[in-house]
Formats: sequence, structure tokens, C-alpha cells
Amino acid sequence: MSKLPQSFETICVESKDGFYTLWLNRPEVKNAMNQTMVTELITFLSEAGAQEDTRAIVIRGQGNIFCAGADLKDMALARQGQTQAQAQASDAYQSLAGSPLYQLNRAFGTLMMQAQACPAVVICAVQGAALGGGFGLMCTADITLVTEDAKLGMPETRLGILPAQIAPFVVQRIGLTRAKHIALLGQKISGARAYELGLAEYCLAHSDDFERTLAELIHQIKHCAPNANAKTKTLLQNSAYGVNDTLLDKAAEAFTSAALSDEGQEGSLAFIQKRNPNWV
Amino acid sequence: MSKLPQSFETICVESKDGFYTLWLNRPEVKNAMNQTMVTELITFLSEAGAQEDTRAIVIRGQGNIFCAGADLKDMALARQGQTQAQAQASDAYQSLAGSPLYQLNRAFGTLMMQAQACPAVVICAVQGAALGGGFGLMCTADITLVTEDAKLGMPETRLGILPAQIAPFVVQRIGLTRAKHIALLGQKISGARAYELGLAEYCLAHSDDFERTLAELIHQIKHCAPNANAKTKTLLQNSAYGVNDTLLDKAAEAFTSAALSDEGQEGSLAFIQKRNPNWV
Amino acid sequence: MSKLPQSFETICVESKDGFYTLWLNRPEVKNAMNQTMVTELITFLSEAGAQEDTRAIVIRGQGNIFCAGADLKDMALARQGQTQAQAQASDAYQSLAGSPLYQLNRAFGTLMMQAQACPAVVICAVQGAALGGGFGLMCTADITLVTEDAKLGMPETRLGILPAQIAPFVVQRIGLTRAKHIALLGQKISGARAYELGLAEYCLAHSDDFERTLAELIHQIKHCAPNANAKTKTLLQNSAYGVNDTLLDKAAEAFTSAALSDEGQEGSLAFIQKRNPNWV
Repeated sequence: MSKLPQSFETICVESKDGFYTLWLNRPEVKNAMNQTMVTELITFLSEAGAQEDTRAIVIRGQGNIFCAGADLKDMALARQGQTQAQAQASDAYQSLAGSPLYQLNRAFGTLMMQAQACPAVVICAVQGAALGGGFGLMCTADITLVTEDAKLGMPETRLGILPAQIAPFVVQRIGLTRAKHIALLGQKISGARAYELGLAEYCLAHSDDFERTLAELIHQIKHCAPNANAKTKTLLQNSAYGVNDTLLDKAAEAFTSAALSDEGQEGSLAFIQKRNPNWV
Repeated sequence: MSKLPQSFETICVESKDGFYTLWLNRPEVKNAMNQTMVTELITFLSEAGAQEDTRAIVIRGQGNIFCAGADLKDMALARQGQTQAQAQASDAYQSLAGSPLYQLNRAFGTLMMQAQACPAVVICAVQGAALGGGFGLMCTADITLVTEDAKLGMPETRLGILPAQIAPFVVQRIGLTRAKHIALLGQKISGARAYELGLAEYCLAHSDDFERTLAELIHQIKHCAPNANAKTKTLLQNSAYGVNDTLLDKAAEAFTSAALSDEGQEGSLAFIQKRNPNWV
Repeated sequence: MSKLPQSFETICVESKDGFYTLWLNRPEVKNAMNQTMVTELITFLSEAGAQEDTRAIVIRGQGNIFCAGADLKDMALARQGQTQAQAQASDAYQSLAGSPLYQLNRAFGTLMMQAQACPAVVICAVQGAALGGGFGLMCTADITLVTEDAKLGMPETRLGILPAQIAPFVVQRIGLTRAKHIALLGQKISGARAYELGLAEYCLAHSDDFERTLAELIHQIKHCAPNANAKTKTLLQNSAYGVNDTLLDKAAEAFTSAALSDEGQEGSLAFIQKRNPNWV
């Protein structure tokens, strides 16, 4: 872990044997994501993801809450900055793309793309609430756990704004209509309903079951070869846009390469010798 | 509502404060869709959708039934017209595309594209039955309610024809395999099963629960800013074909634009002042 | 059936009136798919699919098990062949694409594309287990039945290899995240859970219910016009990549063509005369 920054301002990280727990660490504001947190999350996911021995990253929130959404103070500042810039400009504000609000918003999308592109397994362990940006992040995870009473959703249009960077990832996870239903009502849904809709793979009523399930997931991932898992995640991600011969050709190349690798040889040998492979 | 035609032949419209109820109004033939009804629906959705103050459109059927499908009389007439045209033609009928049957069928697709493109929230409130074209229309809605005992499905192949304009929208709503399962058996499924499959977001056993849920949905939509909801619907629709950087760039532009608009300012102010915004 | 090979080595076929039952027939190795079986399945699906009177193909396994996955002996041989080829080559092994392992793997993808492209309804009747390639095949079926206690999944990454040809079809069937969840844990899931996830349309606890459901499905398919069903399957398959005007135009052509065909005329007449059409 020496290559990773030793400390962050808004998140904290624990690690053991390639398994990371990344805590959103602003419990005093329900882990609201400000610009610093988004930047630190992108940095961490990019650096941890680039290390070959990273096997899983569990994202969760301090204070028994995952994330209440974007930090409204940052938003207000960006809005103010934008208004001033517009007032000072001699001609009409031409491009939204360079503006503070645009950049604040767009950074969320970069974070979610990063989470999906991370070769390690990304787990979101959602207690209490995941709203707005927190809901988006939870939707990009490979595996999501929620507490039964969690409050989840996209309240943006109730505030006159859009779940702009979030909505596309919700559609990818649960399909067009279910995403519309949640976004166009701005309603909060429960963990139990999230499980039914495919927003979460596990819904737990008690906190000890929650921790036990998380531990069990780590245990399962230990049995999967790290490199094979990373390559499989990439393949799955590439399969999101349909099946075709080119995709299957590349998949066969990746298969051959894996089967001839040290991992593939060890996996095959361990199976024949009825023992655990060396990555467990 | 002054810009909309005052009366239609096959549908009737009620409206209040930007919320419309559109009744399919041919109860004597179970609201079977004939050419006139399809044309009138397209006209209404296009005109109501173009008005900025339209917030939601509830589509439902008179006589406690949503829609039994295409009107078979129209179909028989079109088939006859086509046969005569072919008989009169000196050479072989070359193109299907200009024919009466083709146009009758293709118009359904136009209707469903229109329903999806409508910036307002479209709700289908399905009592009794939704078959063929009625089933297709129900699948394009943003939110669908069904009665528990409703009969739903695509019986077309049992009649030797195809659920041609309908099937693509069913795949979009519930995925390839579940759509195949329904279409290739020509079976009727219940409202309860439709809820499980994601064909409906609400399944109600009693008619008073049905009306209460519908009223509650309208109440929820009133809390969402009209323009923000419209832009969000467009964004979700555009997200149906995958997530990429270009989509996220445009989403950030839409976000910035909304945050700086009157709605965005009012939403932010109302939140700080702990009051309802002016669109509620 | 005279055009089909009279006998196969690894599968056996029963047929009646255009309905086929295709048995995976290597019960001594839990119907593990070796190269011969993959080739024979491709041949059968291609030839039976090309016959106009084929209405449905039920794929199932001898010995109360569907399929335990790829044959590891074949894999070991291919690996050995590859290592020798590499040792003999004067320069570094340049292309994976021509190698025995590549071809062994890629053939699975061809099989699954063939199953999806087959104009007849393909049903997988899964008892006991469907793992690896067996799981992939089950995911390409139009309709899948599982026994409640069936063991299903992709254990590949536990062996250091990838579910390379399989994963894309799992994503197509149940979406990206649910596919990731199964693949990245290498876990076995039950028939009951498979039903919840949309991996199967029927989950049966008792073997007599299993057979009764299968018979009932055949009965339903008999009511659907063979050509209309085949055209509908193609249309659904083409709808998997989104809805657009070109797709709807082609769908309207297919509709018109079907309505004017013998099937379409007979279906319409039978409906008016309140009798079964001649294909039942």
C-alpha cells in the first residue's frame, strides 16, 4: 500500500492482503460528497486499481450512513462563482462546459466510470442512506449490500435539478423503466424494495448479519484467482453493449492467455490434486 | 388546453393544472385500437407533450378495461384493400411499405415512439386487460399500474401474425428472454406476474387501492420540478443505449443549465427555507 | 428428420411432429461438453433449425443432470498441444487465435450464437446442474426450466480461467450487475434463486411437475403459428440493441408479409369461425 497516499482528508482506508475498506469519512454531514471527496475517491480507485495485488474494495460510510448525496455548500459556492463569472463577462456566457457547476457535476461521472473500470471487485456496503451521488456510486458497484431500512433514491428533480451523472448508471443497472420510476417521482425507496429491483444483491435487517455477509463475500472472492477475476470483470463490462463475434473472439484470446498463465496452471493442478490453489 | 382539439371521436380527455387523464373511449369493443384511435392518440400526445405546462398524462380505458388490442375490422379492411390493390396491379405487388396493412401496423410504432418521447410523465393505468397494441402502449409508459386479475400479453402468433411494433418495446422494458417467453407462447399473463417481471410498477387487487395509488403518484409528481423532470426523462431515454463520456458531458450541461434556471434557484431557496417550492 | 444425421456420438435426439428433444448423452461424466459434443450440437441446431417444420427443440441431459461444464480432459489435451507447439516454434508464439485452446473455447460461443439464431423455440430443461458451458447454453434458451435444487453458475475464476464465451450471454439475459455478482464470486446458485434473477422462467420442486410443465409448454407452442413464431423470434433478437425507426419499418414489413401469408389467412379465418387453426 506504500504507493497510495498515506492519508486523505475526507476518506480513510484500511487494507489487508489486497482487500481494502474505504470509508467515506465526513459523518458530521452524513458523508455528503464535496469536491475534495470526489477527487480523493477518484485518486484512490485509480491507484488501488492499478496495483496488481488489489482484489476487492469495500466502500462504506462512517456513522452508519453511506452517503446523503452531493454537498450543497459546494454547489452553492459553484453557483455563486458561476453567477459572478457571468456578470463579469462582457458578452453572454457562451459555454456551460468550462463553468464551475459543470465541472463539479461532471466529476461525479468520472468517479463512477472509475469505479466500473476498476479491475478489482468493488462492493458498496450501504447502511442508512444512499441518495443522489451516493445512490449513483452504489449502482456502479459489482456487488451491493443494503440495510433493510436504508433510504435510497434520486431526489434531484424535487430540488429543480437533474440526477445528471447518476441516471445513466441506474439505467445500466436496472433498466430504463425502473430508473424512470425512481427518478421521475424523486421518491425514496427502501432497502427491501432495492433488493427486489436489482439495485442490491443483499438486503440485511440486522447489523451483525450485514457484517457477516460482507465477511463471507471477502471469503468467496479469496477463492477466485485475482487476474482471472479482473479479466472477467472487463469482459462483462464490454458485454454490456451486446453480443457479437468480435467480442467472442477477444474473449477466446483472453481465455487462452489465462489458461496458459501461472494462475491457469496452478488452478488446474490444484483441482486435480484436490487442494486449494495458492491464491486462496 | 385551448390549443388541443376540443373533442375526439375515440378518446376523451380530462385535465387539471397540467395533469391529463386520457380515456380510451370505445368500451363497446373493449377499447380496441382502430386507425382513428391511433391517429388521435398520436395527435394528443404530440400536442399535450409540446405544451410546457403539461406534467403528467394518465392513459386508461373506459369500461374497466384498458385495451383489447388492434381492431380486427380495420385489419380485415386493410387486408381486403391490399388484396384488391394487388389484383388490380398489372405487375407483381413490389413493395409492402406503401400498402394499407403496412401503414396500419407501422402507425402503432409511431404512437409508442411518441409516448416515450413525450416530455411529461406518462402513466398507464391498466384495468382488466391490455393485449397486443394495448400491451405495447403499456410497456412504453414511465409508470404502469395493473389490476391483479388483468390479462396481459401478445396473442399475435396464435393468429398467424406478429407482435411487430410491440415486441421491441417489450424487450426494452423487460429484456430479451422475458419478452421471448411471453411472445413465443402467445400466453396471457396476470397482473401479479406482470409486476414480478417489471412490466408494471404497481399491482393492485381492489379498485379503491388502484385509484388511491394513482392519486398518490400525481401527488408525488407535483413535488418534482416540471422542467427538471422533462429533462431527466430525456436523459434516461438517451441512457438506454449505454453509458459513455459524451453522454455524461451532455448530462453535465443539462445539469448546469437546470441549476441556473428559475426552477433550480427556487428549488435551492425552498430547500434552505424549508418550504415547498412554487411548483408543488 | 431424414436430412439429419441418424446418430450422434454424444447426443441423442427424439422427434415428433416438428418437436425435438435433444439429450446430452454422456451421463458418465455428468454430460461434460467435449469438442465432439459441441460440434454435434452445432450441427444439430443448424440442420434442425433450417427445416421449416421444426417448431421447438428441448435440450436436456441424461442421468438427471443437465451439464457439468467443459470436459477437463479435452482442455488438458489442448493445453498440452499448445505447449508443444510453442516449444517447437523457433520464435515466440505469436498468435493465440490459431491455437488449440483458443479454438476449443471459441467453439462454445459459436454453439450459443447458433442456439439464439435457431428459428424454432429453444427450451433448456435443466435438472441437477448447469455449470460453465452448460450454464451459458441455458442462458441462450428462449425458455428455461430448472429444478429447485439445481446447482448453477460460473466457477471458472476459481480455476484461474475465465467464463469467456459464457459471460456475454449471461449479461444479455440478466444484465450487467447480476452477471458480475455470479461470475466474480464463482459461487453456485440454486434453481430458486435463478428463477428470481430471471435466469429461468420456471422453477419446479418435483420431477413430475417438471415434466408436466414441459408438456404444457409444448402444448402452448402448438397453438402458435410456426412461421409467425420464427419471425417473431428474429424480431425480438434484433430488438436487443434498442428501438429505432428502421427496426419498426422492418417489423411492419414482416407483419404485412405474415398477415398476407397462408398462416395469416388461416389464423384470421379460424378466429372468426371460432375453431383452432390448422397448425394446432
